[in-house]
Amino acid sequence: MLQGKQTWLFQSKPFIAASAAVGGPFEAKGLLSKDFDILHDDVWLGQDSFEKAEKVLLQEACETAIKKAGLKKEQVQFFISGDLMNQIISSSFAARALGIPYLGVFGACSSSMESLALASFIIDNKGADYIVAGASSHNVSAEKQFRYPTEYGGQKPPTAQWTVTGAGAGLISSKGSGPRIVCATIGKIVDKGISDPFDMGTAMAPAAVDTLLCHFNDLGIDPTYYDLIATGDLGNVGHAIASDLLEKSGMKIPPGIFTDCGTLIYSKDQPVMSGASGCACSATVTYGHFMNLMRKGDLRRLLVVATGALHSPISYQQKETIPCIAHAVSIEI
Amino acid sequence: MLQGKQTWLFQSKPFIAASAAVGGPFEAKGLLSKDFDILHDDVWLGQDSFEKAEKVLLQEACETAIKKAGLKKEQVQFFISGDLMNQIISSSFAARALGIPYLGVFGACSSSMESLALASFIIDNKGADYIVAGASSHNVSAEKQFRYPTEYGGQKPPTAQWTVTGAGAGLISSKGSGPRIVCATIGKIVDKGISDPFDMGTAMAPAAVDTLLCHFNDLGIDPTYYDLIATGDLGNVGHAIASDLLEKSGMKIPPGIFTDCGTLIYSKDQPVMSGASGCACSATVTYGHFMNLMRKGDLRRLLVVATGALHSPISYQQKETIPCIAHAVSIEI
Repeated sequence: MLQGKQTWLFQSKPFIAASAAVGGPFEAKGLLSKDFDILHDDVWLGQDSFEKAEKVLLQEACETAIKKAGLKKEQVQFFISGDLMNQIISSSFAARALGIPYLGVFGACSSSMESLALASFIIDNKGADYIVAGASSHNVSAEKQFRYPTEYGGQKPPTAQWTVTGAGAGLISSKGSGPRIVCATIGKIVDKGISDPFDMGTAMAPAAVDTLLCHFNDLGIDPTYYDLIATGDLGNVGHAIASDLLEKSGMKIPPGIFTDCGTLIYSKDQPVMSGASGCACSATVTYGHFMNLMRKGDLRRLLVVATGALHSPISYQQKETIPCIAHAVSIEI
Repeated sequence: MLQGKQTWLFQSKPFIAASAAVGGPFEAKGLLSKDFDILHDDVWLGQDSFEKAEKVLLQEACETAIKKAGLKKEQVQFFISGDLMNQIISSSFAARALGIPYLGVFGACSSSMESLALASFIIDNKGADYIVAGASSHNVSAEKQFRYPTEYGGQKPPTAQWTVTGAGAGLISSKGSGPRIVCATIGKIVDKGISDPFDMGTAMAPAAVDTLLCHFNDLGIDPTYYDLIATGDLGNVGHAIASDLLEKSGMKIPPGIFTDCGTLIYSKDQPVMSGASGCACSATVTYGHFMNLMRKGDLRRLLVVATGALHSPISYQQKETIPCIAHAVSIEI
């Protein structure tokens, strides 16, 4: 049910019956390593390409979430997923392996919450009993596609971010127990003229702010309603900008409540510049860390605002600025 | 509401309150030229890149559909769209121009019906009053990205298809008049081991058959329920294979009922090999030609089964076969 301008309020509050996070060796050295279900010690995952490795990450996250929910693949009606690869091949090839009817989405790094928002809407309105929603990214496949091959060893400015190698998936269900999805706010494109792909936090921060303001306005609540509001992958640079922009809009979020998945996942001694990014950033932190906190009773009301930079290498080469978007999903237990 | 395994039955039968099709100079010479709202005589559309031209096609189709419905952009709650470009930049940049909250989808050439199915589900369940659903493709941007630059003049086998330069959009509404969306069947990946990107009809035909069989099974109807069943862009080669496979499955569709958008759009003297393809193939034929037939009373019950080949140039280079999918949407007046 539409509430306000851009927010879907879910009457039945669908359950995240189970969730899973899968990561690579670099994520294993991070601060949230204990929140991953599977951690690989090889970025190739035994595959002969990084693209195929990314597909395995996503497939494993989905299969683990389905298994943790006590279900079989055949019982899951739909798989909704997106990733950063051209033609979202990670999601489509994972869909082939899973054999579940499939809806591909693309919202760059906001794909994690786009797929969760759509899955929740469909479950809430009896379009399915079980849906697996997911998203993935792979550091090397993303670097190769969007920037340079890592072997090139190009230097990066301090505003750059480190794409997470991983995947997160949630099994969304009409019944069960555990965290429940209360509502979702679908974002619109915000483009403030930033064109530097090494500074996506700055580009995406205004989109996060736009969606947050819309969310609070649509629901008539203020940020203190939540125990935690987490942006997807703004990193240190983008998160500080988002805080400033919110304050200027008269919507100051207390610092203890406001965080960013991209600043949580790695440790301070890992060379990730401004922080983490990639579809798997918000996907692994949400489906791993946050869900674990909720299940342990350490977190009750969570809002995840996943942000996406919707440019391509071609649009960058053609001197276009970066259109950004953010989708917010509210989860409570 | 889920009916059977993969079909959503829409209780309120959302309206296609208005629709629009936009094409290029080659489409202007085709058999369906009178069904386009706008036909450009220049494949560049006055832009300085083919990618930017494709974005204009999509933007124009959406704006025309919105205008024909007597609405303003501000009244439309969501824009759901997909295309073939890496990171679906045509849709995302059109979303920036439209300023409407946006959900990007990717199902290759099945994106036209994926966006329409999701839009219908959301309207049917009061997630919005108005949604614009669309899809686009551009012959030259697609050739450049998936095959060779057209200037190279590479020869093609007779199984190859011609990517439509165009865009189609529908304004989906909870009220109004005109064609109504009855149900949608979401496909699963079917991959029979075809890896030749110059023979997508053969690759996609089994996916169309899988979705058709599922559709009839879920609803307990047979093909004669429909006045017309149109696959998306199988072309002559793929459509003949789909007919054969259906007959082998005991589901023979009478030839007068069964067609393919890719065989309808161009004239016999246009050098399009097996037929047309691209997201805009099913999008322009559905939102232009078929909607005009329905509004004139010449077509009552229509099933569009848009097919998508979910490979990428990278997956092809890595010797992967082509995962295919088909989504079906049933429209009646």
